[in-house]
Amino acid sequence: MARASEFETIERYFAPLSAAAPGAYGLSNDAAVWCPNDGCEAVITTDCMVAGVHFLPDDPPDLIAEKLLAVNLSDIAAMGARPTGYTLAVAWPRDIDETWIAGFSQGLERAQTKAHVSLLGGDTVGTPGPLTLSLTALGEVPTGEALSRSGANPGDSVYVTGTIGDAALGLQVLIGTLEPQSAADRDALVRRYRQPEARIGVGVGLSGIASAAIDISDGLAADLGHVAKQSIASIEVEAAAIPLSVAACACVDKEPALWGAVFGGGDDYELAFTASPAHAAEIETLARSADTPITRIGVIKNVEDDEPGVWFVNPDGSVITIEQSGFRHF
Amino acid sequence: MARASEFETIERYFAPLSAAAPGAYGLSNDAAVWCPNDGCEAVITTDCMVAGVHFLPDDPPDLIAEKLLAVNLSDIAAMGARPTGYTLAVAWPRDIDETWIAGFSQGLERAQTKAHVSLLGGDTVGTPGPLTLSLTALGEVPTGEALSRSGANPGDSVYVTGTIGDAALGLQVLIGTLEPQSAADRDALVRRYRQPEARIGVGVGLSGIASAAIDISDGLAADLGHVAKQSIASIEVEAAAIPLSVAACACVDKEPALWGAVFGGGDDYELAFTASPAHAAEIETLARSADTPITRIGVIKNVEDDEPGVWFVNPDGSVITIEQSGFRHF
Repeated sequence: MARASEFETIERYFAPLSAAAPGAYGLSNDAAVWCPNDGCEAVITTDCMVAGVHFLPDDPPDLIAEKLLAVNLSDIAAMGARPTGYTLAVAWPRDIDETWIAGFSQGLERAQTKAHVSLLGGDTVGTPGPLTLSLTALGEVPTGEALSRSGANPGDSVYVTGTIGDAALGLQVLIGTLEPQSAADRDALVRRYRQPEARIGVGVGLSGIASAAIDISDGLAADLGHVAKQSIASIEVEAAAIPLSVAACACVDKEPALWGAVFGGGDDYELAFTASPAHAAEIETLARSADTPITRIGVIKNVEDDEPGVWFVNPDGSVITIEQSGFRHF
Repeated sequence: MARASEFETIERYFAPLSAAAPGAYGLSNDAAVWCPNDGCEAVITTDCMVAGVHFLPDDPPDLIAEKLLAVNLSDIAAMGARPTGYTLAVAWPRDIDETWIAGFSQGLERAQTKAHVSLLGGDTVGTPGPLTLSLTALGEVPTGEALSRSGANPGDSVYVTGTIGDAALGLQVLIGTLEPQSAADRDALVRRYRQPEARIGVGVGLSGIASAAIDISDGLAADLGHVAKQSIASIEVEAAAIPLSVAACACVDKEPALWGAVFGGGDDYELAFTASPAHAAEIETLARSADTPITRIGVIKNVEDDEPGVWFVNPDGSVITIEQSGFRHF
């Protein structure tokens, strides 16, 4: 398909994504107008993805779009906020095919419909380099109620949503270093890498309950490490309590070294959070209402002589030695 | 200088730029919290720049940073809004030197101090391609008072700030297709291309006065064309009234073909706006208080049989035929 001009491309593929937001002026203005609801303040985050670094260049364009939106909405969710809109900057190779753009905009449409957000504005430019995408997501949270990484208190429980490690294993499948035993396991892991889901419902529900929260993008160890450092706390995680999918279980049972992907792998975009034990029942209720598993995996301890940090322990309390490196992109 | 890790780079060079915004959490959180003041709504815009496309790869890093911020703040100004903060996504080549990053952050600091804005968050990633920068600027405007491109009415005067065409001529100097007669002219034109200034003071003052506004990024003809199209209006510009700098005057006097750069060249980041003649005195006062020349260059006419559009006319009313192409990047 021949390439339309920048203006035609915006009008055809992107302006429809702004239709539900009157302040976006159909993407025809210099900027968009938007306001958090009364009693709320705005939450804003920006994440960038580069072809060949954050996704595989031949990944389907609709899935790239869905992931780009999901990783940003995940940051909004980790603040306990409700996402409302986003802007988009795309630098694409000049020879990009219009079918690619069409697929990308379809992925955005699917993802934004599900998340109840609208495109508010952005910029498209050509680049001699790889496709480079930057998305800025906006959300709103009751004033003063935003979650941060710094509020964990000794005695708080540590929770995660969903299952951990699938995305890192899925990436290993895609780059050919892991071959699961069944096609179903293979598909399940790849889907988790390519199509992460922002835990929006849980995030919104955590405002007023969680003492600290983060989304797992760099890996469980690295991201809990951020919470530990900023809360000046020690986090003890019972390795056996970490929730694994059926597919991940099958992989680590066969090859225990793959536990490294569970502790250290990134890209799951689950939420990790801390909360006082007094909130345990509310958290169970939230898991049911958001239809999302929430699992208690550990506890916040006082920092004593040590640096703030994260320890994974066996059922007998012995510490598991792992490389606590964050996710390394391929 | 050796390259620090991503976390060290953020802490050393970018976190200080967020110091004045408590909601940025020192860039240590998933997202930032921010709120427009009471009675205001938020304005948001995103612009992207690629090395070799929007700036020359060996341009000084501090000037690239200043320009990146300026082009976004210019969009905020064109909405009649006051800029307040921004997020930044940087995809830089893996071998980028830390001195480059230091220079870039110094440019940001200078520009944000001048504009009274703070860095709120962002993302830095590596890329195998050219340096790619995306900035999202936030501002605030009294609720319901945001300017758009669609409000121009027949009889309104058309104004521009500053002088027109300098940046396009400056780019010609930089790529070697124009050699001004004096070194002072050369420097003045190059400075306009490399160091555009967002007309923040005028923009804020235009809220409640202008009927439509836009910043001149694609070129006077193209950008007034956007206003004409969206206001469904015809715009008549007296070519002789277009304000030129001393340096630009010298160039077009010697080589009249360079008028093409005045009509069609981009990157000036001046404001063009329309206002009822009833506001003429207020606009004079605004020009003085913002210490920025504002020049009346034309008038909005009814669309009669023609399509909405822009006509440049001679003093005798005859129409000047020009290629009304927007700015083409090198």
